[in-house]
Amino acid sequence: MRGKKLGSQTNRLLSKPSIKSTGVVVGPKEGQGPLSQYFDEVSQDDLLGMPSWEQAESTYLYKACKKALGKAELTTSDIDFFYSGDLLNQTASSNLAAKKLGIPYFGLFGACSTMTEGLILASKAIDGGYANNVMAATSSHNKGAERQFRFPTEYGGQRPPYAQWTVSGAGAAIISQEDVGPQISYVTTGKVLDWGISDAYDLGSAMAPAAYDTLKNHLEDTNQQVSDYDAIFTGDLGIQGSSMFRELCEDDGIEVAMYHNDCGLLIYGSDQDVHGGASGCACSATVTYGYVLKLFEQNKLSRALIMATGALHNPQIVQQNVTIPTICHAVVLENISSSNNQNVGGDTSG
Amino acid sequence: MRGKKLGSQTNRLLSKPSIKSTGVVVGPKEGQGPLSQYFDEVSQDDLLGMPSWEQAESTYLYKACKKALGKAELTTSDIDFFYSGDLLNQTASSNLAAKKLGIPYFGLFGACSTMTEGLILASKAIDGGYANNVMAATSSHNKGAERQFRFPTEYGGQRPPYAQWTVSGAGAAIISQEDVGPQISYVTTGKVLDWGISDAYDLGSAMAPAAYDTLKNHLEDTNQQVSDYDAIFTGDLGIQGSSMFRELCEDDGIEVAMYHNDCGLLIYGSDQDVHGGASGCACSATVTYGYVLKLFEQNKLSRALIMATGALHNPQIVQQNVTIPTICHAVVLENISSSNNQNVGGDTSG
Repeated sequence: MRGKKLGSQTNRLLSKPSIKSTGVVVGPKEGQGPLSQYFDEVSQDDLLGMPSWEQAESTYLYKACKKALGKAELTTSDIDFFYSGDLLNQTASSNLAAKKLGIPYFGLFGACSTMTEGLILASKAIDGGYANNVMAATSSHNKGAERQFRFPTEYGGQRPPYAQWTVSGAGAAIISQEDVGPQISYVTTGKVLDWGISDAYDLGSAMAPAAYDTLKNHLEDTNQQVSDYDAIFTGDLGIQGSSMFRELCEDDGIEVAMYHNDCGLLIYGSDQDVHGGASGCACSATVTYGYVLKLFEQNKLSRALIMATGALHNPQIVQQNVTIPTICHAVVLENISSSNNQNVGGDTSG
Repeated sequence: MRGKKLGSQTNRLLSKPSIKSTGVVVGPKEGQGPLSQYFDEVSQDDLLGMPSWEQAESTYLYKACKKALGKAELTTSDIDFFYSGDLLNQTASSNLAAKKLGIPYFGLFGACSTMTEGLILASKAIDGGYANNVMAATSSHNKGAERQFRFPTEYGGQRPPYAQWTVSGAGAAIISQEDVGPQISYVTTGKVLDWGISDAYDLGSAMAPAAYDTLKNHLEDTNQQVSDYDAIFTGDLGIQGSSMFRELCEDDGIEVAMYHNDCGLLIYGSDQDVHGGASGCACSATVTYGYVLKLFEQNKLSRALIMATGALHNPQIVQQNVTIPTICHAVVLENISSSNNQNVGGDTSG
């Protein structure tokens, strides 16, 4: 038995699969933000020469996968399985990218939690000996998401101050058994929670309880404290959700503020007029696979908890007076050989 | 290393996880069909007391899971992970069922291939030692699928003769390490194929090439012939797709006709006016977990290949002149201790 089950939601991956390479491609707005230097490619426009936002999103995804392959000096035939999902109905972006890649494919739907959902399944495939190299990826597109979940951007509707901005871009990671990058040592699979939010603009508040619940269970399952991490990154809680998450943790004695940062507060600058922060599947994927992994490489981080958060929001169900279910999956990244770490959590907000 | 990788797409599961129990709940039309006796529950109407088709679908799913739990004498807290997906945008049926069940959840999107996609991931979780019991499930609802993918049924549009009828219902299976039911010995993960179909009524033809490709690769990876199986069940190719699948196989020297049956040709009778056969995530799930597993129990089958087929159809993408990507995942069920087998493939059509 390789993957020991700890407590109710966590597996310890005894062989510690590692992230061999990543690929991150983002849109122009993300390229104007403070993390620009950490991304492999910034597109000049958000259509990438495609006839629609949906096909542009899939192009981001495909490009991110090709970047990851190129950096690992691998081709598609070296990848045993591809795990991908996105926000579009029927995960259209991932399906089209999977068609172009031609890799045996597991389609996922975890909304903005897809990044860690895919990483959990991918790292178990390596740890269990089912594959030599696998790829996990996800994408989102601001304009595609807006017209599917809210209003077409052409409508020019006013966004409330707590609304988050869906990231345009994609992130991909190749996971392998070789010890060549940050290792995945523990994975915690989330449960679906719903604390009664039905406002499709307030997804940070909807997801905060799921993030709190997954963190609490992760710490209990692994018998750890938040201080066992250099940093804890939530996916896309934004300003409102991050504040709620910290409050829920602190009310329960989990002093997370010193360690916590949110990918949705890192990718855009305060001058970029995104209101409540960033969101979208690509938010945690681009920040983690771009910025966080660079911190590992630079030995500024040696142990981080990545908790991508997802609002499993279906507009038709909300019209039927059902509130929004949410989920959060967590993955521990650690760099056993590194030292000289520096706490990068804290009160950063963008 | 537990899960040996064979060829390009197949894993051999050395510990052979087994199906401990299943739960199958269907709608009234499915209850009037020839397989009625194999289902655990037939609902009197297709709303099940819910205010919408979508919520009714999720109720089918939840009920199927509860049936499987009841038959295994387990509760939700005995299940380590829940793998589920469906056809609804953002897999709404699965998300709501996962919320009620409270089991750590992996959301999947594989359209009508979800049944085997979930079974592959679930059986690997058991085989890899990550869990003691897991549950894989899927659902569909005729009226919910019609209004999302084609036209609301109230519109009364004429269906072409090759159109398939989406099954209302759900199937769930509990997979465990105990040797208590048919074992899962090989799993073959599909690649996304697209042979250029854009007619949302002709999904059987769209999926047939994916089924052929997965069968061909499965046989090559495992160095087997179709005659190594008592029966080969495709998911929901229907009349048109089944005929195309057999032709593609036979043109390639794979004499599948004697062994092949299609879940989409089994669930409804010829008097039920479903035109081209059945489809939907619940098609392969209800037929496999109801009927096929009963054949194993009765020793009429000892080795079968289950190949759920999925059209990864997104109406918006098709409106953009992109054709429909498809996929097929295969799982080998075998009952090592059984004898007295009987070939149940062949030319049955419904």
